[in-house]
Amino acid sequence: MASGDLDRLIALLAKLPGLGPRSARRAALHLLKRREQVMLPLAEAIRRAAESVLPCSVCGNLDAEDPCSVCRDARRDASQLCVVEEVGDLWALERAHAFKGRYHVLGGTLSALDGVGPDDLSIGRLVERVAAGGIGEVILATNATVDGQTTAHYIMDRLAGLPVSVSRLAHGVPVGGELDYLDDGTLSAALRARRPF
Amino acid sequence: MASGDLDRLIALLAKLPGLGPRSARRAALHLLKRREQVMLPLAEAIRRAAESVLPCSVCGNLDAEDPCSVCRDARRDASQLCVVEEVGDLWALERAHAFKGRYHVLGGTLSALDGVGPDDLSIGRLVERVAAGGIGEVILATNATVDGQTTAHYIMDRLAGLPVSVSRLAHGVPVGGELDYLDDGTLSAALRARRPF
Repeated sequence: MASGDLDRLIALLAKLPGLGPRSARRAALHLLKRREQVMLPLAEAIRRAAESVLPCSVCGNLDAEDPCSVCRDARRDASQLCVVEEVGDLWALERAHAFKGRYHVLGGTLSALDGVGPDDLSIGRLVERVAAGGIGEVILATNATVDGQTTAHYIMDRLAGLPVSVSRLAHGVPVGGELDYLDDGTLSAALRARRPF
Repeated sequence: MASGDLDRLIALLAKLPGLGPRSARRAALHLLKRREQVMLPLAEAIRRAAESVLPCSVCGNLDAEDPCSVCRDARRDASQLCVVEEVGDLWALERAHAFKGRYHVLGGTLSALDGVGPDDLSIGRLVERVAAGGIGEVILATNATVDGQTTAHYIMDRLAGLPVSVSRLAHGVPVGGELDYLDDGTLSAALRARRPF
């Protein structure tokens, strides 16, 4: 434990989400046991990604090229724009293969508590993109949290007057979900939004 | 998602214990948001630790110097030798400030299932250390698992005939533990090893 290099490695690993001090120690030991196969390749991969991966200047996705591969893909429907909070949300939608349009990453949500205002997010850029034309529908896919929904309402207001239809994700029972385990808010939303069978 | 560098980073992060594919993606996004403060320092810390941190040739601990800081510390009691499975166990005992002797790291446990025999562990080296003299007590601090206890018994046999007393950690109720939540094995062991009050 007296090695400064080792302590520093453990301290930095412990900053990763999902790792605490104990799991950071385990991770450091794991790496030191696999120097050639994992440890040095990981150092190199972190360094390379830090250099090559940049935010897309159009949508805010992270990619090695700018515009990103989603924005450059001519097969995607440029008339649909899906607005998400974070890059991780964009990746989740891409993994689901559920959407074939383009994205706009806000970079967070409005939050009075954390002092995040509209200028801290890429909302101005979103309005510009929509005002530039060519977009028929904006899908607000912010999280179903208070901050996420507040942000969606704010964007809705900002887009009012522009020739674009604005939709949001459906709320309801998650696929595979059991009613007995769902919260009241979800059950109420699912009931209110019931559809003909 | 189309960046090879990003995919490679996520794949390598997912190899860390405690991180799966989902948490590796979160960790990668976390790093990319903090390039200067966390990401590049982490790459450098991994590279430096991979170069500088080496197993101690005496006890098997990991340290930047050889012999390690524990083996070099003249204030420690060289007559007591605590045998542990892994470096992480040594660190746990050091954090508890419970032991002021020296250590011997086996590098694992005997395991017929995984094909780990005595020659795969530093058991021969342990016998040599004890045979060289100066050690009065060997404390077997292998885990209280089947493999750990099998290994302890095997070491006990190998040390038989050498002028050293061999002890092992007490089994019993963990401090702070509630009887109602303990397994039968621990309760039986605690009862068998009961002590006058």
